[in-house]
Amino acid sequence: MQSFNSINIGVIGYGYWGPNLVRNFSELPGANVKTVSDFSPELLAKAKARYPAIQITTDCNDIFNDSEIDAVAIATPVSTHFKLALAALKAGKHVMVEKPMTTTSEESIELIAEAKRQKLVLMVDYTFVYTGAVRKMAELVLTNQLGAIYYYDSVRVNLGLFQHDVNVIWDLAVHDLSIMDYVLPEKPYAVSANGISHIPGGTENIAYLTLFFEKNLIAHLHVNWLAPVKIRQTLIGGSQKMIVFDDLVPSEKIKVYDKGIIFNDNDAESIYQKLVGYRTGDMWCPKLDSTEALRTEGLHFLHCIRTGERPISDGEAGLRIVKILEAANQSVKKQGQLVELNLTEVSW
Amino acid sequence: MQSFNSINIGVIGYGYWGPNLVRNFSELPGANVKTVSDFSPELLAKAKARYPAIQITTDCNDIFNDSEIDAVAIATPVSTHFKLALAALKAGKHVMVEKPMTTTSEESIELIAEAKRQKLVLMVDYTFVYTGAVRKMAELVLTNQLGAIYYYDSVRVNLGLFQHDVNVIWDLAVHDLSIMDYVLPEKPYAVSANGISHIPGGTENIAYLTLFFEKNLIAHLHVNWLAPVKIRQTLIGGSQKMIVFDDLVPSEKIKVYDKGIIFNDNDAESIYQKLVGYRTGDMWCPKLDSTEALRTEGLHFLHCIRTGERPISDGEAGLRIVKILEAANQSVKKQGQLVELNLTEVSW
Amino acid sequence: MQSFNSINIGVIGYGYWGPNLVRNFSELPGANVKTVSDFSPELLAKAKARYPAIQITTDCNDIFNDSEIDAVAIATPVSTHFKLALAALKAGKHVMVEKPMTTTSEESIELIAEAKRQKLVLMVDYTFVYTGAVRKMAELVLTNQLGAIYYYDSVRVNLGLFQHDVNVIWDLAVHDLSIMDYVLPEKPYAVSANGISHIPGGTENIAYLTLFFEKNLIAHLHVNWLAPVKIRQTLIGGSQKMIVFDDLVPSEKIKVYDKGIIFNDNDAESIYQKLVGYRTGDMWCPKLDSTEALRTEGLHFLHCIRTGERPISDGEAGLRIVKILEAANQSVKKQGQLVELNLTEVSW
Amino acid sequence: MQSFNSINIGVIGYGYWGPNLVRNFSELPGANVKTVSDFSPELLAKAKARYPAIQITTDCNDIFNDSEIDAVAIATPVSTHFKLALAALKAGKHVMVEKPMTTTSEESIELIAEAKRQKLVLMVDYTFVYTGAVRKMAELVLTNQLGAIYYYDSVRVNLGLFQHDVNVIWDLAVHDLSIMDYVLPEKPYAVSANGISHIPGGTENIAYLTLFFEKNLIAHLHVNWLAPVKIRQTLIGGSQKMIVFDDLVPSEKIKVYDKGIIFNDNDAESIYQKLVGYRTGDMWCPKLDSTEALRTEGLHFLHCIRTGERPISDGEAGLRIVKILEAANQSVKKQGQLVELNLTEVSW
Repeated sequence: MQSFNSINIGVIGYGYWGPNLVRNFSELPGANVKTVSDFSPELLAKAKARYPAIQITTDCNDIFNDSEIDAVAIATPVSTHFKLALAALKAGKHVMVEKPMTTTSEESIELIAEAKRQKLVLMVDYTFVYTGAVRKMAELVLTNQLGAIYYYDSVRVNLGLFQHDVNVIWDLAVHDLSIMDYVLPEKPYAVSANGISHIPGGTENIAYLTLFFEKNLIAHLHVNWLAPVKIRQTLIGGSQKMIVFDDLVPSEKIKVYDKGIIFNDNDAESIYQKLVGYRTGDMWCPKLDSTEALRTEGLHFLHCIRTGERPISDGEAGLRIVKILEAANQSVKKQGQLVELNLTEVSW
Repeated sequence: MQSFNSINIGVIGYGYWGPNLVRNFSELPGANVKTVSDFSPELLAKAKARYPAIQITTDCNDIFNDSEIDAVAIATPVSTHFKLALAALKAGKHVMVEKPMTTTSEESIELIAEAKRQKLVLMVDYTFVYTGAVRKMAELVLTNQLGAIYYYDSVRVNLGLFQHDVNVIWDLAVHDLSIMDYVLPEKPYAVSANGISHIPGGTENIAYLTLFFEKNLIAHLHVNWLAPVKIRQTLIGGSQKMIVFDDLVPSEKIKVYDKGIIFNDNDAESIYQKLVGYRTGDMWCPKLDSTEALRTEGLHFLHCIRTGERPISDGEAGLRIVKILEAANQSVKKQGQLVELNLTEVSW
Repeated sequence: MQSFNSINIGVIGYGYWGPNLVRNFSELPGANVKTVSDFSPELLAKAKARYPAIQITTDCNDIFNDSEIDAVAIATPVSTHFKLALAALKAGKHVMVEKPMTTTSEESIELIAEAKRQKLVLMVDYTFVYTGAVRKMAELVLTNQLGAIYYYDSVRVNLGLFQHDVNVIWDLAVHDLSIMDYVLPEKPYAVSANGISHIPGGTENIAYLTLFFEKNLIAHLHVNWLAPVKIRQTLIGGSQKMIVFDDLVPSEKIKVYDKGIIFNDNDAESIYQKLVGYRTGDMWCPKLDSTEALRTEGLHFLHCIRTGERPISDGEAGLRIVKILEAANQSVKKQGQLVELNLTEVSW
Repeated sequence: MQSFNSINIGVIGYGYWGPNLVRNFSELPGANVKTVSDFSPELLAKAKARYPAIQITTDCNDIFNDSEIDAVAIATPVSTHFKLALAALKAGKHVMVEKPMTTTSEESIELIAEAKRQKLVLMVDYTFVYTGAVRKMAELVLTNQLGAIYYYDSVRVNLGLFQHDVNVIWDLAVHDLSIMDYVLPEKPYAVSANGISHIPGGTENIAYLTLFFEKNLIAHLHVNWLAPVKIRQTLIGGSQKMIVFDDLVPSEKIKVYDKGIIFNDNDAESIYQKLVGYRTGDMWCPKLDSTEALRTEGLHFLHCIRTGERPISDGEAGLRIVKILEAANQSVKKQGQLVELNLTEVSW
């Protein structure tokens, strides 16, 4: 399916996110958007007006059945991801699917198995992972510039679009979980979560997740659709340095603080006798790559199709987040009771 | 013990907070600081230099045994609160004690009982409750300007003084719990909490608390001694309006947002069919009373002594917070498992 | 030329701003973009791809000579405004021209005269004047909610595009002058300005303008292409209230402060004897109309064409700003020496 | 007069600033506050209560006539500085006097001459010059880390204390002038200033100053007593790096931006043909010395007394600022007309 020529792409779903996929893949060297599919003729008409050369269809099978199409990008409601991605894989297409990958971990496992069987690329569209800010944070953590990681704390709140098919965890926390999964070298072993719904019959619109790790590390996520102000802030604390990531400021998104505590861990008694010391140095805002994340991500998808390389946000990354989301939902039902995770890989 | 003349006050503890107590009570009409007690002769010398007319002593019994002293303010380590407050009450003195009131709820109950028996005022020094900002929030909630309260979310983090006798919950969350207890008309019925210690043998330096209420309301507190930046922010969401309280800005601490969601709760089906509507109006920063909180609080203490009126931050308020702190510690040990609270009153 | 049908519009210039004009006029009810003209075939190809129904031409005479075209929007370099606008007016087209209207006040006067002669609408595209924020400020000033206006102070700095044909005054101060001209009921009688160029042979890239008024009012503008941070802030001080306008924040752009000074102006002596008193009340952020300014402006242009009503940003407003810009340039040459303005109207 | 023992200091004026002087000199090793003088017995009583060992007097001659007193710190209204400082110098005392040093440059020159004659230290209390932030800026400029300095722009506005004896230039701009004088290696040759008074019979409460330099550098100061918000911001632009100094934030006061423009100054024509290029790199917040400025300054004063070394903020620095203030006042009267400065040294 992979060719020396341009990779032909079919995009399924032209609602909120689909237009961004079409625009980016259209502008990428080595890619060509051949067909766009959506249930809505109105949305398809918009796509046609904007990109006269693209074929449009209300039947996604036209994409699956087109032997010239190499890869499919899926930007439809979560509940349809599994069926569409599976069909695409079975039709021999590489797949990039919106997050969360599926509604259950069983479905994710099946997609991973099918992609492996077919030797196709299965990638989840964790757009944030491909931003300059998140890549810089990952670089700082992975090159050990923060020292041992102590905590990961994120807040993602605003007066937002209440979803009716998924709760705020599946809608917003999925972003922070994908960032955390990429930035932190460790994987959590359990989750405790709490949430509340303020709409009769609705899903949770506020939630708090705590993630536990084998190492001396804790992660916490706060997501809220009903906040008067928009906040997108992440703190990462390390033994050497600490990061504040504010995604809403136009520049200076990543601040690296040379701050920390000093203590003598060989002399346990001293802890009880004297205060911990504090260390404060310079703050530093690294310049960030300002390439649009979806462009970087699209190039990575094309690269993985061509080389067979494993994507950063591969099916396993998709599965890990779905497992955490499932466990968080369970914990919310039990008002914070610990739910264990098993994030070991199923394949590769 | 109560007199028509100035109320004579003894202050026990002249470390971090004691000097503020002495300064404020010294300046209050109708009050007189007669004696200051501390173990440290150096600290007492400072007090004497600053206030030559005040008596100093290293033995707090000199205060308890002084029949001219009407009231005692206690600003010593938490572990000594119970013993000192009980001795003061038994000696017939009104008591204002630092927060948290005691290390166990049993001790708090005993103090409340003793104060009741002696018909003395027992007050906890919840300083924040007496700030213009917190009083304004309480006024807005209690006059129903926010509508039904949906959530209370606070963050109190900084690179702070690691305590060796109490964890970050007892050190920092106690502030937010006292504010929440005053501002919200409802009391929580259970708590789920998580935390972590990064110092070998140390207490938790990061913690997250979720509080559950009978009404459709959730509260969450984030406290951290190991953050690179200082944040003191509280969000209160209501059905009509929402508050953002930022205690670090010099002005505009309280912002009231005329924002919310609109939905038809008679037609449950519609929730699944269409999105919730959003309402956005003006924002408003009320002018706040800028009187020093400790002055307002001191005047309130004197007023309660004179009239027998029940203090806003009375022993029951002290007990409620100690119960929540105890339960939070238990929940942390069980990694977030729900611990029920019984906050019904023991007296009055 | 005016018709009961859609108003046909020709757009000259499809560089930086032209695409916004085409997009907005295309979406307005009662308007139709018939032709786009530009020297660059590449830019015209973009326009055609985006709007297949629009005619394109490299010769603007095709627009002037098209009897079906009612109005022309000009978005070309400043030096060409006069020639193009005059040709359009002479061809009987209503005109909306980018700011500044012309490079000299004589040219502006000639355009005003020609428009008057032909009974055509001549409008300058002062986009900011049509934003919700600026319209709210004007409303607050004109309904006397600020009291007497004491000062107008604006800062517009960033690391910006150095222009080679105009200096920073003509490039950036023109925005603030158009806002000030709209918001303040008074017109200045003189200007003192200073500036500097840091590029050999270049124009001023930093400038400061002070404007003098007959009333007890002063205005000051600071513009800078060479600042490390972007600032877009305006302060308007009144005897009753004061405004802070920050155009860079996503919400809360306009803050209205109930602050001021209190003094007894009947008793001149008291000024020398005691301090002025201060008054501090609430702060208030009015909700702003979030309609795109260019849409509001386009509708206003169409309305003026249909009704013969005088536009808010008419030729006279264009002339006033050109006169101030000319005077500012003169004052800069004389290192701040006062240059008088004559802003009385030439027509209408 | 200088001794191997503690330097004895007399403080004249115990109003707003005097208590800070007394507190700092009291805590300095090698200094001793012997006497405090003020017209007000109430203020003197406060001083006595706070520092029982200090002598108090309503007659400043008691200080001048006390042979044990080595140095005098003067914190009285500006109009009295000259007379008091001259008397102190004539009595053989070293002098530290509040800013501005005198009300006329002639007086400043006379004080410098007298200090020189007596071989005494004459120092102006430019407190800001001794802050960690300003010292860091000076270090960055003087070690050439910013490259060639292009501009210095400061804003100092708030709803402030209207003074009745001096205008806002003498009250607020004096701070920024002293900072600029210390940070910039060049001295201005002329000033253009504008201002306005909103109080009948009052002095200017808003003013704008532009300072001209021989090098390709401009400075501008904006001072305002009637602003709804407090702003203390300085921008310093250099060819290599640029600084933003915000004195109101608790940390991160100094931000150093690795930003600038790139152009080929050998090829003048290119300027007219293509845009200037932009360079954007990291931002960096250096850690600042947090010692109280007045302590650093006091130690410097003692050091200069002991060694005869020339103070950073010496009489010449005092004179330079008074000359600029005089010239600014003249320019305001002439609505911005240029007034030349002669800042060459008179002595040393």
